[in-house]
Amino acid sequence: MYEFTAPFQNPSGSPIRELFKYLGEPGMISFAGGYPASDLFDVDGLKQAAARAYHDPNLCLQYGPTDGLPLLKHQLIQLMARRNVSCEPNEMLVTTGSQQGLDLLLRVLVSPGDVVVTEQPAYPATLQALRLQQAKIVTVPVDAHGIDVARLATLLASGTFARPKLLYTVPTFANPTGATITRERRIALLKLAVQYQFLIVEDDPYGDLRFSGDAVPSILSLASEVDGARDWVVHFASLSKIVAPGLRVGWTIAPTEITRRCVIAKQTVDLCSAPWTQAIAAEYLADGALERHLPRITAMYGRKCEALCNALHAQVGDALEFHRPEGGMFVWARLSESGNGIDASALLQRAIGNKVMFVPGKAFFADNVDAASLRLSFAAPGIADIEEGVTRLKRAYGEVTAGGA
Amino acid sequence: MYEFTAPFQNPSGSPIRELFKYLGEPGMISFAGGYPASDLFDVDGLKQAAARAYHDPNLCLQYGPTDGLPLLKHQLIQLMARRNVSCEPNEMLVTTGSQQGLDLLLRVLVSPGDVVVTEQPAYPATLQALRLQQAKIVTVPVDAHGIDVARLATLLASGTFARPKLLYTVPTFANPTGATITRERRIALLKLAVQYQFLIVEDDPYGDLRFSGDAVPSILSLASEVDGARDWVVHFASLSKIVAPGLRVGWTIAPTEITRRCVIAKQTVDLCSAPWTQAIAAEYLADGALERHLPRITAMYGRKCEALCNALHAQVGDALEFHRPEGGMFVWARLSESGNGIDASALLQRAIGNKVMFVPGKAFFADNVDAASLRLSFAAPGIADIEEGVTRLKRAYGEVTAGGA
Repeated sequence: MYEFTAPFQNPSGSPIRELFKYLGEPGMISFAGGYPASDLFDVDGLKQAAARAYHDPNLCLQYGPTDGLPLLKHQLIQLMARRNVSCEPNEMLVTTGSQQGLDLLLRVLVSPGDVVVTEQPAYPATLQALRLQQAKIVTVPVDAHGIDVARLATLLASGTFARPKLLYTVPTFANPTGATITRERRIALLKLAVQYQFLIVEDDPYGDLRFSGDAVPSILSLASEVDGARDWVVHFASLSKIVAPGLRVGWTIAPTEITRRCVIAKQTVDLCSAPWTQAIAAEYLADGALERHLPRITAMYGRKCEALCNALHAQVGDALEFHRPEGGMFVWARLSESGNGIDASALLQRAIGNKVMFVPGKAFFADNVDAASLRLSFAAPGIADIEEGVTRLKRAYGEVTAGGA
Repeated sequence: MYEFTAPFQNPSGSPIRELFKYLGEPGMISFAGGYPASDLFDVDGLKQAAARAYHDPNLCLQYGPTDGLPLLKHQLIQLMARRNVSCEPNEMLVTTGSQQGLDLLLRVLVSPGDVVVTEQPAYPATLQALRLQQAKIVTVPVDAHGIDVARLATLLASGTFARPKLLYTVPTFANPTGATITRERRIALLKLAVQYQFLIVEDDPYGDLRFSGDAVPSILSLASEVDGARDWVVHFASLSKIVAPGLRVGWTIAPTEITRRCVIAKQTVDLCSAPWTQAIAAEYLADGALERHLPRITAMYGRKCEALCNALHAQVGDALEFHRPEGGMFVWARLSESGNGIDASALLQRAIGNKVMFVPGKAFFADNVDAASLRLSFAAPGIADIEEGVTRLKRAYGEVTAGGA
């Protein structure tokens, strides 16, 4: 039997994917997944895009350039322009979902022991990627307005850790907190990046999914307002949440030398992401289908979010504290102090018995776990299921408190 | 500007992809690429498979399991059974081309400084992946019958290096040499793996592309003949060379614990390979289309190989030594001793001037570079272009020898 040594000792799978085994149970209502709603996919629009893409079968079937099909990059550059970001082809790399962008970036930038700052709570796959690269993770807490930049400034000034290589954030409708970093904090963050010379890694899969409030520009687009800041921003984006994850089309925008190194790493990793789905994505974007379809997704997510928040407020308002997000897919909640110290894992056990699921917050912490927190996604279930799911959650909560009394 | 440190210092791109800039020159005939022939793609069969796959749009458009769509794995397990390999679903991982399988494997198994043995010459992306993982590369030469197993046994017994973690080989129609390891050597290799407890990593993208001679069983299928050997074999396979690279569908077969760790790494790396192209591949295989179409590809590659070898023999037989491969896509050649020490890079310069390209052999060496060697791929160009290409090669050779005189 093969004897395993470092660097991947005793790995455990994603705590979220671990929950998937319960998804198959009949009648289960899940607030656990980070999946977009299948019933909102633009099935016909994508079918037509696929037919157009196959007018050039060789483009779909042959190897493609490692950095992405030029016609897709052209469309993505136009999409970024609509988001007030200008970028050149040699600053952009198409990846297998934006998640691959992060993995490539960490591999070309981060050595074992290097300091990386993340917001906390944070996306678990990012924490796992940092562990795989053996980074030293430093966390900065998130409040309702995103990462606490004043706290970060204090930490950086204190010199309690080596200069970080990079800071990872989902600044808009964060996973898991749903929070959006304010414009002021974004500017402050950019100034810190220039001052301390670390990269801001902005992961932005949800930014288009705004259903209320005013848009906040991406950190990348704000970089033009801070001298020298553009050199210190890497931006990840994706079609997974706004078109379909099955395309596996994400992209990275980064300074050219970083992009060049990521392209070389990708040559080694997988040569290129699937050209066939890249070609379909390009046709879909060229047709303007995203702009036509996106309002339908955001409107429905807005209604689902409202349904979830209203039901939580009405049914378990005494037990759970939460902020209403202005977009994205997630509500982050805490079991309130009045709850006798019930933790979210105990609640989940009872919840599963009542055929409802969520993700306990501990999955999102690198340290100082808040065991009372939990993440609820409203994206996938229908509105009736959302309301019924909260009723079940209330029942589960009642069982835990009764059991604990 | 970001200051780059280890682990990815001063990277350079693939030496083969570097040559691609010449591909666009009008009239260029290329023996350089490792691309399959576009005109042999089963365009209609894949179109029909795509239509069938989209009967279940959610399967195509939603995230899929990290280890691959179950219906694709079912088809791949049946395909492996036709290749005399039995395997269970938890031994198989679907990857973005087989290249990703190697990258994942190295990440979960190899620490910086670990010894990895490769055949030499070897596939450059493998050498690059080993460097990215900071492995210590030990090379064993290849002859017309594949890797020199007796030499490997001597090296292992000598104790001049630490016990290797693994040995990488393309045993059938190797890239770049076209050589196939004999059955006897495969058995000897399996015995060495058991004795010294290293993994044999068998990369098998070309095995189905046999156009002459008798089939040799894969190392994985022979593992059943050596006690305990199955625990020491990892097998990579791919649809890139036998269906289409644009699907980016490869797969790994490995002992369950290795597979489990690779799946966890892949969760972090890209969550899943494109479900849409996986679904298309599954429909294509389920239909029996591969079995119907493959004879057309192998027959044509056989004719192209014969055309190349005959033309080389007739036109530059005095200058080039080579073996005729029995399958695959590559002819490996050496400028003969009579050639006054001309090296392949010098020949390439003149060749490009004459509108013909190949890959100088140095790209395939980790050490002890053989500058007189070169790789010629017969897969992509048509037969008339192959013959014209060799005529141009002869002209280029004449220019180099005249220049050197």
